[in-house]
Order: sequence, then C-alpha cells, then structure tokens
Amino acid sequence: MIADTPSPPYYAVIFTSIRTENKEGYQEMAVKMEELAKQQPGYLGFESARDTIGISVSYWKDLESIRKWKKHSEHLLAQEMGIKNWYSRYKVRIARVERDYDFSV
Amino acid sequence: MIADTPSPPYYAVIFTSIRTENKEGYQEMAVKMEELAKQQPGYLGFESARDTIGISVSYWKDLESIRKWKKHSEHLLAQEMGIKNWYSRYKVRIARVERDYDFSV
Repeated sequence: MIADTPSPPYYAVIFTSIRTENKEGYQEMAVKMEELAKQQPGYLGFESARDTIGISVSYWKDLESIRKWKKHSEHLLAQEMGIKNWYSRYKVRIARVERDYDFSV
Repeated sequence: MIADTPSPPYYAVIFTSIRTENKEGYQEMAVKMEELAKQQPGYLGFESARDTIGISVSYWKDLESIRKWKKHSEHLLAQEMGIKNWYSRYKVRIARVERDYDFSV
C-alpha cells in the first residue's frame, strides 16, 4: 500500500536491489524485518515493489531513528544474510522528504 | 536498473501509485515520458518497479530541474491523462538525498 506518512519534513530510506537466484529464507526474513521495523521508534511507513529490480522505501521521523534501526541486532543479521545470499547488488539512499502531494479518485 | 547517480546531495522524486484497470496507452506513455525525462537538464537517473503498487524514483540535480520537468508541456498532458485514466491513487514525495552507499558482488 501507499504509506500514510505525516506532513514533511521526514526521512526516506530508498533501498533499490537486484536479487540473486537464491530464494531460500528470503520471504520469511522480509516479512519479519517489515514487522520488526514497524515496532521501532520513529518508524512512519513502508512501501515496496519488485519486478526486474526491487524498490523498498521506508519512512522515518529523523536520522537518529534510521541509525538505530540500521544497527538493530536482528536487522544486522538480516543485512549480513542479504549480502551473503539474496542480493547481487543494492543501493541505499537516505533522503529528507521536503514536500509531498497526492491524488485519489 | 539501479540508477548510477553521482555523489549526494541531489534530489529524488518518489512516485508511488496504484493503477486502474485501464491499460490503454499507458505503457507507450510511460516509455515516452522516461525518454523525455532523460533529455531534461538536471536529470540524473530513474528506477521503477511494480507489483501490487508501483514505485518510480527519478533523480535530479536540484529543485529547479524538478519544477521545470513537472511543467514541461508534454509531461503536463501525461499527468492529466494519468489522473483521468491510469491511476486510482498516487503520492509524490520530493526528497533531498543526503547520503548513499551500495553493495555489489
């Protein structure tokens, strides 16, 4: 779903990735990390889509919340497994959302 | 592909959308707009993925480039057709990329 974020400013972590052929354990870990992220202080929302590449965007209150989530022990393990097994390439961009607008029928 | 953007700072336009059932003309317009965007001053790259939702991120040198692209006459027409035909909902977020890092095997 489209994340229902508050008024800017807030932060976005844009995670763009290319997967390996190895699917073992990936989906379970993705679900687990999404659930765990939701429980972190400063978490504001999450959006994700994948076809030839994957784009996941998580939204956060501030840089401190992002730093803490990056260093969360279970998340560190997931990052390690991602590098070892599931991703052939990824790029992470930390961005400050300054403006937003939307359309709905 | 993962966009090969320069060192931050630069800007990201995160476009998250839900499509209607109407596919007529959509793909042609999407390709046309991606080609046209590439030719604009300040364009840095583009990433896109869709499953239940779509996430497209375009990268730009500065806010002025984004403003000009938003008001480009052919792009304005595409935006109108998008609202009328192709999207049931979307959200646009303009964000300043402050930091990035990547992984590659």
